[in-house]
Amino acid sequence: MKLDKIIKKLLPQDDHFYVLLEESAQNLVKAGTELKKLPLCRNQSEREEVAKRIKDIEHDGDSVAHRIFSELNSTFVTPMDREDIHELASALDDVLDHMDGCAHRFVMYKITQVPKAVTQLIDVLNLSINELKNGVYLLRNLNKTEVFQDTFKMVNEYENQADEIFDQAVADLFDKEENPIQIIKIKEIFVGLETATDKCEDAANVLEGILIKHN
Amino acid sequence: MKLDKIIKKLLPQDDHFYVLLEESAQNLVKAGTELKKLPLCRNQSEREEVAKRIKDIEHDGDSVAHRIFSELNSTFVTPMDREDIHELASALDDVLDHMDGCAHRFVMYKITQVPKAVTQLIDVLNLSINELKNGVYLLRNLNKTEVFQDTFKMVNEYENQADEIFDQAVADLFDKEENPIQIIKIKEIFVGLETATDKCEDAANVLEGILIKHN
Amino acid sequence: MKLDKIIKKLLPQDDHFYVLLEESAQNLVKAGTELKKLPLCRNQSEREEVAKRIKDIEHDGDSVAHRIFSELNSTFVTPMDREDIHELASALDDVLDHMDGCAHRFVMYKITQVPKAVTQLIDVLNLSINELKNGVYLLRNLNKTEVFQDTFKMVNEYENQADEIFDQAVADLFDKEENPIQIIKIKEIFVGLETATDKCEDAANVLEGILIKHN
Repeated sequence: MKLDKIIKKLLPQDDHFYVLLEESAQNLVKAGTELKKLPLCRNQSEREEVAKRIKDIEHDGDSVAHRIFSELNSTFVTPMDREDIHELASALDDVLDHMDGCAHRFVMYKITQVPKAVTQLIDVLNLSINELKNGVYLLRNLNKTEVFQDTFKMVNEYENQADEIFDQAVADLFDKEENPIQIIKIKEIFVGLETATDKCEDAANVLEGILIKHN
Repeated sequence: MKLDKIIKKLLPQDDHFYVLLEESAQNLVKAGTELKKLPLCRNQSEREEVAKRIKDIEHDGDSVAHRIFSELNSTFVTPMDREDIHELASALDDVLDHMDGCAHRFVMYKITQVPKAVTQLIDVLNLSINELKNGVYLLRNLNKTEVFQDTFKMVNEYENQADEIFDQAVADLFDKEENPIQIIKIKEIFVGLETATDKCEDAANVLEGILIKHN
Repeated sequence: MKLDKIIKKLLPQDDHFYVLLEESAQNLVKAGTELKKLPLCRNQSEREEVAKRIKDIEHDGDSVAHRIFSELNSTFVTPMDREDIHELASALDDVLDHMDGCAHRFVMYKITQVPKAVTQLIDVLNLSINELKNGVYLLRNLNKTEVFQDTFKMVNEYENQADEIFDQAVADLFDKEENPIQIIKIKEIFVGLETATDKCEDAANVLEGILIKHN
């Protein structure tokens, strides 16, 4: 362990950064819950309402990210390296941005007939977000290496599942849908959801890096 | 502040790395100015000339990146952590690569009827590049936290604007354009410009990380 | 050089991490060799066999990545910074994931008429992988700055080549293919291969960062 890390351990710290990161993770969970409602909407105005709520959550996320950044510049001792807190906050924000983008496109492209794979991808994304959230809460106990490892394994596993659903869904689309414009539209929705799951894995990778640095 | 950072501050340093990073940022501005001309070209040969000039700027950028890399390997004391200079140089280079790609595709896909959103996306990209350039020049004054923060906020804001223009433009394309091949082509141009703005945000994130590390 | 790096140099270390990273690089080479066979397959069942072998290599890769991660959490002294080993392992794994994705899609989209550009992109990807592998083996001699620099230059050069082949291939597709669904399918294969080459450059960038940190 580096000298500056030992010093860090000995100094008093508030748990503020944990709270902010956890708030950021909770925003993902909230957005995920909203996203689940999207395929169930009965009309465009219901879809617009859901997308609006996700946009609001995304604005909350921006404000949390901004508070983290401000505090990083004014706090002397942080529980983890400043640049790692920053990188994790950015990575979590990135997941939220992609979810917001998905919802927005869903509405704008006027998707009414929702393929089953959309629901499946949203479900897997929610599972991944939940694991990611657990990982963020584990930051308070960086010594629980094994629990962490299970989290990373699961996020990785969900990303693989999303890939498989995605590939199968696109292949089905090519087989069954004859309208190329419809193919482009639906594929765009698939891509958005699959990328959001990728971004969860990226965020879990940042977490993994933090864990590795501290053990 | 870590011990090695204090030592760094006490040792003499030349400002060479700042100059090189600023040159890299200026290349983005130059490429952005050229990109603005692209939708105004009257024929394919004019478009080819513009794309050629952007390609030349991109080659200049490669050479700056290479010089930064060589100097990093031969200089003992750098004003910032070596790996951060490297990461920032790569991130700036990445923006330029994407701009070059956009111009190249614009010419190769023989886009003659330019949708208004292309001009809007290029304008927002230029605004973002300009803020990013300001951020790079601020590196000489890492203590000016608030000015930096404004820069990041603006780059983030431009990225959101680009997203909105993009989503609206694609939705319009689906509504109005009946030729699917034309949709694919134009969408590809939109994606390229939107991604270039994303890459500006990535580069601003690297800058933000450097600032956070040093305060 | 930082104090903790000097201490690191003085302590005994096993070369285990080099071996694991090299195994990871070798997996890329193996997957690349399989990928080359894909355009030569005479029927769907042959294609499925190749894709199956690449999937197996990808599983091996996951297991190597997992072993690296476990060892990082249980070893006290590592030859490089832990977080750098982790980042490099992730970057190499990312290349493999994309190669596996390409092969999988190739089979699922039932691509029978293989455009020449696919073979060209696979060739360039293999050249890039080979340079990347050389770079990973060079980690044992971080002082060989110039050889490293050649490696990075080549990976960068191959990425540019892939970009050019890609842009030309897509332009040709727009010119010659009249079926939009076919355009979407083939373009997806091109994108996958071009992205795999991008990921090689990302991994080379991580290597470059490690080199810069240690000189």
